[in-house]
Amino acid sequence: MSNAKFDVLGIGNAIVDVIARADDALLAKNGLEKGAMTLIDEARADALYALMGPGRESSGGSAGNTIAGLANLGGKAAYIGRVRDDQLGGIFRHDIRAMGVAFDTAAASEGPATARCLIFVTPDAQRTMQTYLGACVDLGPAQIDEATVAAASVTYLEGYLWDKPAAKEAFRKAVDVAHKAGRKVSLTLSDSFCVGRHRAEFRDLVDNHVDILFANEHEITSLYEVASFDQVLPHLRAKSSRIAALTRSEKGSVVVGNGEVHAVPAVPNVKVVDTTGAGDLYAAGFLHGVTTGKDLGLAARLGAICAAEIISHYGARPETSLKELAAKQLAA
Amino acid sequence: MSNAKFDVLGIGNAIVDVIARADDALLAKNGLEKGAMTLIDEARADALYALMGPGRESSGGSAGNTIAGLANLGGKAAYIGRVRDDQLGGIFRHDIRAMGVAFDTAAASEGPATARCLIFVTPDAQRTMQTYLGACVDLGPAQIDEATVAAASVTYLEGYLWDKPAAKEAFRKAVDVAHKAGRKVSLTLSDSFCVGRHRAEFRDLVDNHVDILFANEHEITSLYEVASFDQVLPHLRAKSSRIAALTRSEKGSVVVGNGEVHAVPAVPNVKVVDTTGAGDLYAAGFLHGVTTGKDLGLAARLGAICAAEIISHYGARPETSLKELAAKQLAA
Repeated sequence: MSNAKFDVLGIGNAIVDVIARADDALLAKNGLEKGAMTLIDEARADALYALMGPGRESSGGSAGNTIAGLANLGGKAAYIGRVRDDQLGGIFRHDIRAMGVAFDTAAASEGPATARCLIFVTPDAQRTMQTYLGACVDLGPAQIDEATVAAASVTYLEGYLWDKPAAKEAFRKAVDVAHKAGRKVSLTLSDSFCVGRHRAEFRDLVDNHVDILFANEHEITSLYEVASFDQVLPHLRAKSSRIAALTRSEKGSVVVGNGEVHAVPAVPNVKVVDTTGAGDLYAAGFLHGVTTGKDLGLAARLGAICAAEIISHYGARPETSLKELAAKQLAA
Repeated sequence: MSNAKFDVLGIGNAIVDVIARADDALLAKNGLEKGAMTLIDEARADALYALMGPGRESSGGSAGNTIAGLANLGGKAAYIGRVRDDQLGGIFRHDIRAMGVAFDTAAASEGPATARCLIFVTPDAQRTMQTYLGACVDLGPAQIDEATVAAASVTYLEGYLWDKPAAKEAFRKAVDVAHKAGRKVSLTLSDSFCVGRHRAEFRDLVDNHVDILFANEHEITSLYEVASFDQVLPHLRAKSSRIAALTRSEKGSVVVGNGEVHAVPAVPNVKVVDTTGAGDLYAAGFLHGVTTGKDLGLAARLGAICAAEIISHYGARPETSLKELAAKQLAA
């Protein structure tokens, strides 16, 4: 993959996160599904924001977080996503470019505002996300720049995108262009509720179009409709050309691919503050490993190191040099 | 002061902070005055933002931080400041109201955008602030709601306001209304460069119109044009009806008033991450002490406890319950 301009291109919902602490009573009272990502409309977003404590804003979006992490590790990264030409859109663009990521999707000059995700972090460090998609809802094939896709070793897509018809079309276009250029396609299942809503389509994607799959335990057992994690392995081993990286929170991750299975522990003794972005940053580390020629076990260790950094503070963008952190921890 | 609807009303520049790490080389290369607050225009703000690393946004403004801290301590608080009806203005309003603060200044429907302060935090935890005042520049007497001023035991003004003619007029109106209602006026000198620019006017304010003064070492020595901190005490003791709380970073604070002088140490063993808001939160604790009938030494201890919380993390708004923190530390 060494002739590629970019190691990884991320395509996703371009979102600014609004993070605040909340107690479980607030979630219960307002019918918020703990640990999940729920799509909401603007009126609901305004109503929930009014109930929320004082917040902190930072750029987010699942694939956006992964791409920011990959760039922070030293990888060559690009991003496609749709913001509006408003203040939050300006912040999103600034932050991802400030990480060295190529981000050239034009901002919408009309229509809904830049997307925001209200993130309620409970004392147990779990995050509950309520997303107003705003300008993201009109992401379509027009935003998928073919030259950028063809120039990336891996095109990474977030399952969250798989909702509106235009976004599905954009998704399919990206997959086609990448494969025709001889590149890899990677997908994260994103959320078990997403999997539940679109199971048949996700099964088709995973079994026929995806080269590198990311999922957590809930998502992968939902995808294959099995009762326990052990039962997913036969499904994943059935397609030997595909790599699957499965995250299991504090139990670490299991990677299936190249005819091997690697179980890699999580980084021990991490004081968990906010789990937002854990999966996104695991994917950043893993993809950086894979695109720089590391074996799957080492790629999984890189994923674990990046995930550990992100859960040790509020927010889903790295607050330290992951490159230096990884060098130090891998040398130890 | 017990018949007052509000303990403290803060009047200041309503600003959203954009915080990012930076190294000293970036400050030097771009001519940024380390540790100071510099006013910049929109073009310069855009140019500096483009050079800045990925940021985190949170509501700020010196008096805004103080008022948020006071409300967090359990005080009854109000705020006056000018934002625009844009996304950052909405964030500012949400955050201060979410703390329980009464904030009813109408948002501007035209003119410059909501103010933002680019804060460069260097590895030594010092902050260097570049402020684009935006909608704040048109703060004037029209925004000073007389009923609110008359209903507050203390009206707290930030020295940063003392720049444009309309803001000075607003400032003077607030002082007049407060004193006519038998209330106290408090001022922070804000910044030694502010003091240098407006020394004669600040001297007149401090000597003739201010009941509770906040300043750090640099500001107070600049105000009285003396070489060392020891030389300011005679100036401050000259007016016995005035309280002066002087902060000295890790050396703690010195309070002069009621014929007494108290030297109160800083909270020991604090891991300093970002000094942004240290003075603002000291003022919050001190004013909460004074408006709840505590003696000056105890008020200064409350100030030290609040300052220690704010410098232990990025950002200038409290991230924990100051009320609980203060109760615990004062009991220890």
